[in-house]
Amino acid sequence: MKISLLGGTGDIAEGLVLRWSKVGHEIYIGSRSEEKAQGIAAEYIEKLKALGIEPKIYGLANADAARESEVIIISIPPEYAAATIEQCGSNITDQIVVTPVVSMKKDGKTFLFNPPAQGSSALEIQEKLPETAKLVSAYHNLPAKELAKIDEDLDYDVVICGDDDDAKEVVKKLTEEMKNLRVLDAGALQTSAMIEAMTPLIVNLNIRYKPQHFSVKFV
Amino acid sequence: MKISLLGGTGDIAEGLVLRWSKVGHEIYIGSRSEEKAQGIAAEYIEKLKALGIEPKIYGLANADAARESEVIIISIPPEYAAATIEQCGSNITDQIVVTPVVSMKKDGKTFLFNPPAQGSSALEIQEKLPETAKLVSAYHNLPAKELAKIDEDLDYDVVICGDDDDAKEVVKKLTEEMKNLRVLDAGALQTSAMIEAMTPLIVNLNIRYKPQHFSVKFV
Repeated sequence: MKISLLGGTGDIAEGLVLRWSKVGHEIYIGSRSEEKAQGIAAEYIEKLKALGIEPKIYGLANADAARESEVIIISIPPEYAAATIEQCGSNITDQIVVTPVVSMKKDGKTFLFNPPAQGSSALEIQEKLPETAKLVSAYHNLPAKELAKIDEDLDYDVVICGDDDDAKEVVKKLTEEMKNLRVLDAGALQTSAMIEAMTPLIVNLNIRYKPQHFSVKFV
Repeated sequence: MKISLLGGTGDIAEGLVLRWSKVGHEIYIGSRSEEKAQGIAAEYIEKLKALGIEPKIYGLANADAARESEVIIISIPPEYAAATIEQCGSNITDQIVVTPVVSMKKDGKTFLFNPPAQGSSALEIQEKLPETAKLVSAYHNLPAKELAKIDEDLDYDVVICGDDDDAKEVVKKLTEEMKNLRVLDAGALQTSAMIEAMTPLIVNLNIRYKPQHFSVKFV
């Protein structure tokens, strides 16, 4: 598939780009700066070529990356995510849009869930999307470092939610191509707050139980 | 230890009573009605005697059960939990109080986290306790049925939080006596909202993936 990663320069983007390239997907790295996107694309290409993989990775401005793709991953900090979607304007029509966005605040040494007024970042982003776009909430709790080690299997659950079953099915398939992630569907998009709230919980656990990088499994 | 379970007549209470009795703790079942508490205590005693265990289990009114115990488990629905604590009055002084309380609402078929104005049931309950009491938030996500099967090991994580480290250490020890539960400390009591929010998420998953009874592990 043609997959864009808006803000595809940081955090979980690297692992997603590398793992999806490995199984043959076409990747559009988006950034505010096309030049920066192209630089990062070149780095990912080099890493993959060193592993004997010939990837299709392109660097573009965010809005152009969104236009080129069937699935759009919003890999952008919470304070810019909704604005970036808005700036994509008519370049987002009926694509599948995936939000791993979580808004946190720090109180002393403790990270707390700090959702926008809508109750979750997913619901905030949905307000900026056209009705034809299909929003899926996913990938909040993947440990970025482990995700980027593409030869290692991942024994985690990815909890997703959204209001479009077909879009969730596509995200499920894309996710399960990253061995051995399991997808659990929590239901409607309004359940996203409860998925997002796990992230600051895990961040606090990671600080206390360093060097552990926790993710989650439902057993 | 002397452990009371206020509202010890339902849900996770059975498993806690049976498992802690098995390792020798002294249990005070609390209920609004002393008569009901005594009836339930008699049932638990009978179950344990059939397994060759001679338990120390007593049925009392909630406030009396609280007074007799060093650790108080609030096994009470969210709408009555804070009021029950208030009714215990001066019977709660410097005990360790454990809240597994989670407030949910249903929107269509979906369960959502619905915390009180304080942000979590733990923070609501804390307002009703004297400053000398030590509140620990724990046991939100233990599957009641599996917990009650006392010959089966439990391979789950119990995420706890609270502002008193010594109290958390006691809860950790009591929890890890229930094989093979692992305790993870999420930090201060204000992190309880993020722990509580996992419960409606798991309830939704249990409905969708029936007959699975999910709990959680951090890996």
